[in-house]
Order: sequence, then C-alpha cells, then structure tokens
Amino acid sequence: DYLRAGDDLTTDFWEIFIVDPQHHPVGTCMLSWVLRTRRDVPMADIMKREQTLIPVDMDQEEVALRFQKYALISAAVIDQAGRLVGMITVDDIVHIIQEEASEDVLLMSGAGDEGDINQPVLDSYRARVRWLIVNLVTALLPATIISLFGGAIEKMVALAALMPIVAGVGGNAGTQTLAVTVRALATNQLTQSNRWRAVGREIRVALLNGVSIAAIIGLAVAIWFANPVLGGVIAAAMLTNIVMAGLAGALVPLVLERAGADPAVASSIFVTMTTDSMGFLLFLGIAVASGLVG
Amino acid sequence: DYLRAGDDLTTDFWEIFIVDPQHHPVGTCMLSWVLRTRRDVPMADIMKREQTLIPVDMDQEEVALRFQKYALISAAVIDQAGRLVGMITVDDIVHIIQEEASEDVLLMSGAGDEGDINQPVLDSYRARVRWLIVNLVTALLPATIISLFGGAIEKMVALAALMPIVAGVGGNAGTQTLAVTVRALATNQLTQSNRWRAVGREIRVALLNGVSIAAIIGLAVAIWFANPVLGGVIAAAMLTNIVMAGLAGALVPLVLERAGADPAVASSIFVTMTTDSMGFLLFLGIAVASGLVG
Repeated sequence: DYLRAGDDLTTDFWEIFIVDPQHHPVGTCMLSWVLRTRRDVPMADIMKREQTLIPVDMDQEEVALRFQKYALISAAVIDQAGRLVGMITVDDIVHIIQEEASEDVLLMSGAGDEGDINQPVLDSYRARVRWLIVNLVTALLPATIISLFGGAIEKMVALAALMPIVAGVGGNAGTQTLAVTVRALATNQLTQSNRWRAVGREIRVALLNGVSIAAIIGLAVAIWFANPVLGGVIAAAMLTNIVMAGLAGALVPLVLERAGADPAVASSIFVTMTTDSMGFLLFLGIAVASGLVG
Repeated sequence: DYLRAGDDLTTDFWEIFIVDPQHHPVGTCMLSWVLRTRRDVPMADIMKREQTLIPVDMDQEEVALRFQKYALISAAVIDQAGRLVGMITVDDIVHIIQEEASEDVLLMSGAGDEGDINQPVLDSYRARVRWLIVNLVTALLPATIISLFGGAIEKMVALAALMPIVAGVGGNAGTQTLAVTVRALATNQLTQSNRWRAVGREIRVALLNGVSIAAIIGLAVAIWFANPVLGGVIAAAMLTNIVMAGLAGALVPLVLERAGADPAVASSIFVTMTTDSMGFLLFLGIAVASGLVG
C-alpha cells in the first residue's frame, strides 16, 4: 500500500514503470493488473518486461506513430543514459495526431502549417501569400510554353479552348496521387524499401485512368469539332499527361522528403506546375507535329 | 478486493464505472485514485460524478471529438435507456482520428475515401476515374468561356499565354481556403453560428492576397509586354479572381455539408472549376471591355 501512503505522486496514472536501482526501466505494469492480482505476488511476476521506451529527444510525429502502432496508453520517457525521466500519456498524443494530419492538408495547398479560422487575418495572409508568389513564378513556365505555340493558336483558336482541359484533368489526377503518397509517407506505410514499388503502382493506376479519360475526350472532340485528327491529338496528349501526373504526384513528395523537407510543403504547387506545363506542351506540340496546324 | 477475486473481467482497464441498481452510470473513478486512497473510503466519495457518456449510436467522428475535447482515456457506452452497456477506450479512438484526417485529404482530391498504397490497382482506378470524369465535365465550362473569346485571342495571342496564370494562381488561393475550411469543419471549430464570420475572414485574407499578387503580376506584365493596359487588365482580373477563390474555397465545403454530403468530397474539383471559369472570364472579359482588343 505504498501508493496510498506517498503523497508526492500525480493522481492520474494508468501504468507503473518498474526501475532497477540505477533508474533504468525494467518493466511496466498496468494498474488493472495490480488490482486483479493477489497481494502477495511480487511486482516482478506480473509486470511485462517488453515495453516501448521513448527517448527524450524523439520527434513528436514519431512518438505518435509508436503510440498508434502499439495501442499505448502511456509510455516511459528515458534520457540518453537510459534512465527513466518521465512519462507521456495518450491524451497528449491524440492532439499531436490530429495536428499532424491537419498540417498535411494545409501544407499541401501552401496554406501554412497552422492555418486556423481563428488565426489573425494578417498571419494567414503572410503564410499564404508567400506560396502564391511562388505559384506566380511556377506559372511562368506553362505561360512560356503557350507563347512558343502562338502561331499554332492563331491558326486554330480551338486549341486555346481545349488546352486547359488537358492541363486541368491532368492536375486533378496529379493531386489524387499526391494525396495518397503524402498520407502513405506520414503514416510510415511508404518507406525507403517500397518507394519504387509504390511509384510503379501509381503509374499502372495512371495508365488505366489515362486510357479511359483519353478515350472519352478524344471521341467527344472528334465528333464535336468533326475533326478526327484533333480528337486523336487531345487523346494522345491527355493519356501522356495523366501518366506524367501520376509520376509527378508520387515523385514530388518523395523528392521533397529525400531533400530533408516536409513532403507535404506546397507540393500541390509543384505538381500543378508539372501537369500544366506538360499538358500545354503535349497538346500543342502533338497538334503541330501531327500536321493539324501547319 | 472484489476485483482480485472475480475472473470474468477483462484484464486491461483504467477506470471503474459505478452504476446504480438499474445499471445507470452514476460516476467514474480512475484506478489510480483507488490505489491512492485508504481502503475504508467508500467508492461514492472518490468517484467523479460528471462523466462523458457515449450513446451506442453515436457517429465515430463525434466520439473521437469528445475524447479529444475532454482528454479521455476511456468512456462508458450507454444504450437508449441510459444503461451502461460497454466501454470504449482511447486506443480505438486514435485510429479513428488518424483515419478521419487522412480521409479528408484523399476525398478533397477525389482519390476515394480509403486510398492506400496497398489497395489493389483496379480499386484505386475505380475510385479515382469517377472523379476524373466529373472533372472532365466541369472542365467544359472554362473551355466554353475561352471559345466565346476566340476572336480576342486571335487578335492578341499573348492573352492565351497569360490566361492560365490568372486561373492557376486563383486555383491555388482557392485550395488554400478550402484546406483551412475543411479542417475547421472536421474539428468542429466551424459551426452553424460562426460560418458567416469565417467566410468574411476568408474574404479579408483574399483581399490582402489579391492586392499583393495583382500588383506584382500587373507591374511585371506592363513592363514585359511594354503595355500598361494589359498590365492593368491582368491585375484587375487577378484581384477579382483571388477574392472569388476565397469565396469558393469557403462556400463549396459549407454548401456540401449543408446538403448532407461530406464537405471534403471532391471539393477541390468544384473550387477549381470556379477559379478556372472566373479566371478566363474575368481576364478575357476585362481585356475586351477595356478596349485592349477590339
């Protein structure tokens, strides 16, 4: 009944960490096990010897993943020498998990890492305008590509009306792959060892999507404009751009992570830059190469 | 020592729920409080009378929010008559929180609600191609708008090169607002009562962003093309489109939720449709109205 006597202890706890005389944790025991065991059984017999220890310098995202993986309620925190220095409980972790997941959605769009409807307007402005300026710069690439094909557009203005379809649907396909990849990275499903398999998987999904969407838009344009060559051009550009989108959606976060950056940071801006540029280049380039416009 | 004697109980628990003879919960008591109190004190004196009760038919998202709000470890589950029928613990909740947050990222892009790198390729294809087809249909609106301005583009091909900048940066601004709004709805920060205040806040952020970005692009275009009118046209279109993007990013999820749909579902497709259409319409429309092209 030592626990009842001491009064320098916190009142809310769920596990007892058992330490050796050097303060190294040797086991853990849930309070419910204590209450369900006869009084004469020593702690050493009911404690569980394997336990998850959290080093004091561990990243909070990493701690959250451990709690989830092992369904922990509390865990012992140890210092560099392996001595018990504190405990962390799951109610702290719940907030971390919520925050980390929210952060990804916000970072992907370039809305800053703590976008919140209660943030001061000026803070939101500062967080977002930076990425809009970056986006302004990345938008120069697709704009330059279009201006190279000015002659073709003058000859056939329908190209100007159709080109955003190729770019836009490609952008959406890229964002889909991006969302899947960023979540897989955040939940440690995607690691060094299976990254190429995951990229290969995204390319296969992109090929299926590309063939379906290219067939629909190709047929629709061929009939609408009574121009089968134009239908073929947009179908070829759409298929290729959706595959490019799958590649960009998977590679952008992987490259950002490899470079030591957060894989979610403004990744949608870079994916959209790729799908816009490739969309315009492919569509206008194939249109010229096919002899559709001379 | 009743707990040590009974053997039909689960071994892992952290709280004791105290019930009256009709099985209605009357209080809760953490095991640590039991262990820290002298044996002759009755349970009624150490238990906490206010507790969070979870009705059996409560939505899992709602349960997760309660656990977060009150930092619960476990909670009593009651049936319609208010009788204790079970308990739910935080380790179940951790997975729900993680899933709900991931779901939003995936749904927003139209990647389906359980996109996962281990899902079969055909399942991913089916989940995503549906939204790409929807996107193909929504892309018809911006394409139609461009084709209405075919004459203006023929006269000044630079318009075709610049218009995706207005649409693209607007799309990014819309996605930023969308991400903030979807997360605020998911975490119950945004409710019926503060929705108009939140929309107003997004418009203020959009005005600040719009003025900054419009000034940069307007000046750059005026100098680059040695055409101040063209600079003024793109600045006006950009400012208006970023404000439209803020409105769309906040209203699309609010309308989806009002309609009983998940506010995240493919919302980025509808926001992009708005920002693309408005971007082209504003830029080309203002160009014609200003007398820049006749």
